[in-house]
Amino acid sequence: MPELRRDPVIGRWVIISTERGKRPSDFGHTEQKRATGFCPFCPGHEEKTPPEVYVIRENGFAPNGPGWKVRVVSNKFPALQIEGELHRRAEGIYDKMNGIGAHEVIIESPEHERELAQLSIEQINLVLCAYRARMVDLPRDKRFRYIQLFKNHGVAAGASLEHSHSQLVATPIVPRRILEELKGCQQHFELKERCIFCDTIDQELAIGKRVVVENADYIAIEPFAPRFPFETWILPKKHQPYFEQSYQGNYYSLARILKETLMRINLALNYPPYNFVLHTSPCNDWKGPKQYHWHLELMPKLTRVAGFEWGTGFYINPTPPEDAAAYLREVQIPEEELSLPGAAPARP
Amino acid sequence: MPELRRDPVIGRWVIISTERGKRPSDFGHTEQKRATGFCPFCPGHEEKTPPEVYVIRENGFAPNGPGWKVRVVSNKFPALQIEGELHRRAEGIYDKMNGIGAHEVIIESPEHERELAQLSIEQINLVLCAYRARMVDLPRDKRFRYIQLFKNHGVAAGASLEHSHSQLVATPIVPRRILEELKGCQQHFELKERCIFCDTIDQELAIGKRVVVENADYIAIEPFAPRFPFETWILPKKHQPYFEQSYQGNYYSLARILKETLMRINLALNYPPYNFVLHTSPCNDWKGPKQYHWHLELMPKLTRVAGFEWGTGFYINPTPPEDAAAYLREVQIPEEELSLPGAAPARP
Repeated sequence: MPELRRDPVIGRWVIISTERGKRPSDFGHTEQKRATGFCPFCPGHEEKTPPEVYVIRENGFAPNGPGWKVRVVSNKFPALQIEGELHRRAEGIYDKMNGIGAHEVIIESPEHERELAQLSIEQINLVLCAYRARMVDLPRDKRFRYIQLFKNHGVAAGASLEHSHSQLVATPIVPRRILEELKGCQQHFELKERCIFCDTIDQELAIGKRVVVENADYIAIEPFAPRFPFETWILPKKHQPYFEQSYQGNYYSLARILKETLMRINLALNYPPYNFVLHTSPCNDWKGPKQYHWHLELMPKLTRVAGFEWGTGFYINPTPPEDAAAYLREVQIPEEELSLPGAAPARP
Repeated sequence: MPELRRDPVIGRWVIISTERGKRPSDFGHTEQKRATGFCPFCPGHEEKTPPEVYVIRENGFAPNGPGWKVRVVSNKFPALQIEGELHRRAEGIYDKMNGIGAHEVIIESPEHERELAQLSIEQINLVLCAYRARMVDLPRDKRFRYIQLFKNHGVAAGASLEHSHSQLVATPIVPRRILEELKGCQQHFELKERCIFCDTIDQELAIGKRVVVENADYIAIEPFAPRFPFETWILPKKHQPYFEQSYQGNYYSLARILKETLMRINLALNYPPYNFVLHTSPCNDWKGPKQYHWHLELMPKLTRVAGFEWGTGFYINPTPPEDAAAYLREVQIPEEELSLPGAAPARP
C-alpha cells in the first residue's frame, strides 16, 4: 500500500511507493530511449491494459476490444491505490495516511502515430468529453477531494509511452498548489468582490501583448509571471469554477483553441516535449475557499529546473512572456487545419 | 534590467530576463553536450571571468592570477543585476520590481578534474569558509533579504560548466520556499516552544532507520517525506538559525559529513547528477518569523518532474527513505578517504 506522508515543516504531502520501492540500480541517468515495437495502447492490444472504466466506442463493437475512439483505463502501475481506508495516523511527530486514490490513463486516439495536436478538433472534443465524464463520475467516491488531470508529452516531459495519452490522479486531499490558488482567489474576492482570473482576462484583452489566440469562449495567454519560457494558459472567458461547467453539449470551442495553441507551440519551437495540467475546483465536501476559475496550464519543456529553483521556489525565465506571445502569434496556421469536422495531416 | 514579477494569484515571484531574452531557436531540446576544451575556471584563465570578489590564495601570488585555492567571482551572465534601485511598481493589477541582486560563482578548486566529493576535507572546508565569507559580506548591502547558496552538479542537474563550482544569488525578497519553512517553524514553536528541526533530529536519532551518517556536530538523514529518491538533508545537531554560526574557526566537521554523504551517494548511485541548496535564516531587517534551523538539502537527479508534480505540488517518490538510508549506509568507504588533512584519489 503506498503511503501519503506530510513534511512536518511546510506541510507538503508526498506519495511514497512502499511496495515496488526502486533500488539504486533501477535508476539510469542516461537519456531513456522510447520503447519501440509493441504498444499496449493500440487497438487490438486491449487485454494488455486493465479493463476500460470509460470508453467512446462505435456501435456494434464489444467492450475491451477494438472499435473505440477514446478509451480510459486504470493505470497498470498506479501511484495511489483504489482499495482500502485512509487510516490517518501519526508516526512520532510525523503524519501519514494510506495512499488511497485513483490513477487513470486517457488514451486519446486509436492512432499510434498522431499526437494530440494532430488530431481533428472532433477527436480532441471527444478527449475533453472523456475528461469530463471521469471528473463527473469519480467524485461519487466520497474519499476523493481533487481530480488532477495532466498530460506528459515526450520523454523529457516524463512520458514513458509514445501513444498519445493523458492521465488523471484522484487524491484524498486537495493538493497544495491548488490550495494556494484557491486562497489567492479568495483573498482577492474578499477585497474586491471580483474573480482574479476574470480581472486578469480583462487586463490581458485590453492590452493584448500577451494574448496568443482567442475565440468567443476562450483565451490563450502567456501569463504575466510565467515560471517557464512559452508557458501558456487557456482560460474560459466566462467565470466558471468547474471544468465540467464549460460543457455545452460538446467542447468544440475548447478543442479548437487547444489544438491551435499546441500547433503554434509545435511550429514555433520544433515540436517540444511539454506538460499540461488542468486546474479546477475541488470536489465533494470541500470546506475551504470556493472562488475559483478553472484553466489549463501548458508548459513546454525547454529549460532545466536546477538548484536555485529547488532552493527558493523562484524561477528564472529567459523569455519575457510578451516576446513569447509575439513569436506564437507569428506562426501561420492554414485555416483548414482548424476546421470542423476534419482531420489534420499526420506528423511530418 | 531583469524584472522581478509576482504572480497575482499565488504570489510567486519569477525573474524575467528582459534583455537577453531567448528566442525560440535558442532552445535545443536534445541533450546538451558538455563543453570540452577551454575552461574559464581553470588557473591561468582568470581574465575570462569577472574579477574575484573573494579568494583564498597562497602567499606571494597577485590577485586575479593563478595561485588560488578557492575563488569567488560574479557570474558573467547574472540572473539579477547589482546596480540600481528596486523601484517597486504596479502594471495594472500586477506587481513588479527591478531585478536587483547579486549572482556569484564559487570555484571550488583549481583542479578541473576533481568534483566536490573528491576534494580533500581540508579543501572542502575552504569552500565552506568561502560560502561563509560571502554570507557575512553580502548582507552589508541592505537591499538584500536572502542569500541562496546552491550547487548544480552534472548537465542533467543544470550545470553548464564541468569545473566544480557552486553559486549564490542574493535576492531583495525572502523566497517563497524559505518563507514557508519559516512559517512552519514558527507555528511549531508557538505551539510547543521547541524547534521542529530539533524535534526531527531527536526522533531520527532515536529510531535510526533514516540516518545515513552522523558525527559529533552534524547528522545526515533521509527526511520522512522526501520529494525525491535519495534526497538527503545535513543538519547541525545544535540549534543554529544561521549557517555562519556553525563556524568553529573552520568547518572541518561539516566538510567531513558532506564529503562522506556525497561519496555514499556517488558509490550507491554511480555518480549521479545532483543539486544541493543551503537553507538558512534571512538577512538584514527581516520582520517575519525568526525560528529557523539551517540545513543543507541534497537532491540526486534520478527521476523526472512531470505534469502531476507541476499541477499539484505533490511528489511521487519511488524509493522509501528508510530503504534509501539503508542503501547509503551499506556503502563501504575506506577511512583514509575521510582523514584530515589529506587528498582523495582522483575520479576513477
